[in-house]
Amino acid sequence: MTEIKEDRQETAATPATGAPQAPAGPTDGPLTAAELQLSARNHSMPLEALRREVTPPGLHYVLTHFDIPDIDPASWHLLIGGAVERSLELGMAALRRDPAITVPVTLECAGNGRSLLTPRPVSQPWVMEGVGTAYWTGVPLAYLLGKAGVLPNAREVVFSGADSGIQGGVTQRYARSLPIREALRADVVLAYSMNGGDLPPQHGYPLRLVVPGWYGMASVKWLESIEVVTTAFTGYQQAVAYRYQDNADDAGTPVSRIRVRSLMVPPGIPDFLTRNRTLVPGPVLLQGRAWSGGGAVTGVEVGIDGTWLPAQLEKAPGGFAWRRWTLPWVAEPGDHVLSCRATDSTGATQPLGQNWNYQGLGNNMVQQVRVTVSAPS
Amino acid sequence: MTEIKEDRQETAATPATGAPQAPAGPTDGPLTAAELQLSARNHSMPLEALRREVTPPGLHYVLTHFDIPDIDPASWHLLIGGAVERSLELGMAALRRDPAITVPVTLECAGNGRSLLTPRPVSQPWVMEGVGTAYWTGVPLAYLLGKAGVLPNAREVVFSGADSGIQGGVTQRYARSLPIREALRADVVLAYSMNGGDLPPQHGYPLRLVVPGWYGMASVKWLESIEVVTTAFTGYQQAVAYRYQDNADDAGTPVSRIRVRSLMVPPGIPDFLTRNRTLVPGPVLLQGRAWSGGGAVTGVEVGIDGTWLPAQLEKAPGGFAWRRWTLPWVAEPGDHVLSCRATDSTGATQPLGQNWNYQGLGNNMVQQVRVTVSAPS
Repeated sequence: MTEIKEDRQETAATPATGAPQAPAGPTDGPLTAAELQLSARNHSMPLEALRREVTPPGLHYVLTHFDIPDIDPASWHLLIGGAVERSLELGMAALRRDPAITVPVTLECAGNGRSLLTPRPVSQPWVMEGVGTAYWTGVPLAYLLGKAGVLPNAREVVFSGADSGIQGGVTQRYARSLPIREALRADVVLAYSMNGGDLPPQHGYPLRLVVPGWYGMASVKWLESIEVVTTAFTGYQQAVAYRYQDNADDAGTPVSRIRVRSLMVPPGIPDFLTRNRTLVPGPVLLQGRAWSGGGAVTGVEVGIDGTWLPAQLEKAPGGFAWRRWTLPWVAEPGDHVLSCRATDSTGATQPLGQNWNYQGLGNNMVQQVRVTVSAPS
Repeated sequence: MTEIKEDRQETAATPATGAPQAPAGPTDGPLTAAELQLSARNHSMPLEALRREVTPPGLHYVLTHFDIPDIDPASWHLLIGGAVERSLELGMAALRRDPAITVPVTLECAGNGRSLLTPRPVSQPWVMEGVGTAYWTGVPLAYLLGKAGVLPNAREVVFSGADSGIQGGVTQRYARSLPIREALRADVVLAYSMNGGDLPPQHGYPLRLVVPGWYGMASVKWLESIEVVTTAFTGYQQAVAYRYQDNADDAGTPVSRIRVRSLMVPPGIPDFLTRNRTLVPGPVLLQGRAWSGGGAVTGVEVGIDGTWLPAQLEKAPGGFAWRRWTLPWVAEPGDHVLSCRATDSTGATQPLGQNWNYQGLGNNMVQQVRVTVSAPS
């Protein structure tokens, strides 16, 4: 019997066919089976992992639009072409001979917080944990673009992954673009390593883009091609998805940098099902992390039953990585609501209420943690 | 200011206090916010990872009842006591000097498939991907029990983790027991390594139990103590949770070994939101894995629109690890339903309909994959 290559099915997808449809609209109804299936596939970072400056694989959030491709690194190549002086075709061995940088980066899914919105946009139903911080090692994108020679009329750089599927009626490979000025930033990296180890399959093995400061949709995984273009890229993930829209007919504005946000490690112990927290009375160190793609985090306030107190901020590990904050608190018996609110160097701060939009993106509303303080039974 | 140890909150929990309550009952209603929060915390294995014999961290399923503890390996100790000749207190360095074994094991959550049941038991709402296979390396439990010297009246061995919380109204550390004959099996391992690397935090760092063939609840993570007991253990996770019950008042029977099961890599490409699959017409290699805690997998049949065909079975990697199966299929245009059904050496096979029980455990109902075969647009 002739060997059947299952991969012919995966490579059958061609980019951007079909008439694009707007993302599914918001609902006041209950969670659908499709949303639960997405929640089962994609995973977030349990909030207790905020204790760690670095998030290991399995704790770092993962969103995969289609399937995780199974790539043979021996036959894999990266193509760099379009409006360049010299097209390049590079294997992994060649990439590993190029100069490498390591950058600490907090990545967050643009849809993080979506399921808390009312009405709820139907898509991956993140609660609030779609985040993680890792050290990414690889070749600076600017170095490779320099090698290829970007032509003067270049406008954007388009990154295409190996992951293919259908979204909004369009059969596509996942692809996103960056403005040329962002692509030439010194800290944008083509990463082949996460936290010093090989890139895990779900994080883009063998090579992914990492764009510090931008929501995760920009950091294209399973990277196969980089094309310098002279007109605005109109692929589905750029022109239809990942836009701040008021409604389905609004052209909207593109999502780019991560809005300022902070999260807290819920103190005490959880109830398995409800996740309600119980603490014993006495001193407890409240702690968490804060980050922003807009600028450095300059302050975090902690709200205790509505009274805001300034938290102690630790030095950031660098770049667009989160900063640890702490606040000692003496827990008194009773029910309490704990919150945290970060501000960045642009003056942006987190809203107390929801900042709703049609696709449920960039929801950086303040987290609320309800705790019950009682003596141990 | 005096340094406040946040850990005092975590260690405040004492085992097994409060009157136990039955797990939450089943519902015909929509998914609750509590279930979604559990789904966001715990993660399953995307089905395309069935292509891999070994599941890396981040793809392997994880269920954490309470919070993932943050353990300092330098001060961590394992206590072995109870009905033994000599109590032992072992640090990680001592454990690593003991003889080590490596076992390939398929672990599955006992609640896998729960959300597909009607009515739906309210708990972690697994769809069908709560599974994974890893190589676990560590000290054979039987070796350490031999060193301690098990007394003749020993009946069970109780394993307690560092993870504490509240479940069913009971404040507890997670704890489970094994009958002494199971604890003395040669392949039960106290693992400090997963797939050749350090145990990740979410998989029980620095030490976990791995019980091949049993559902995952037996493989206690973040292990702190092992106690040999002379009477049946009545902890919450043994006597209340993880029981096959007809209703809340049924004492039920304990869950132990994994029921025979197979899963398929959904062929073709997915739609992002619905996960519906699309294939081009022509040959495709259907493939997946099959496993059982009852005995060796002896056969897998693949159902194509209700017609069952025998799949090719590959050699198992050993022990209780899954076996790969394949079946070549020529996809004809139209809509199709694909299924797979495994049988093991005890004669057990997967049911076509649900095997409902009050807690939603051991649901090994046959998977159905709906695909649309159409020419590329």
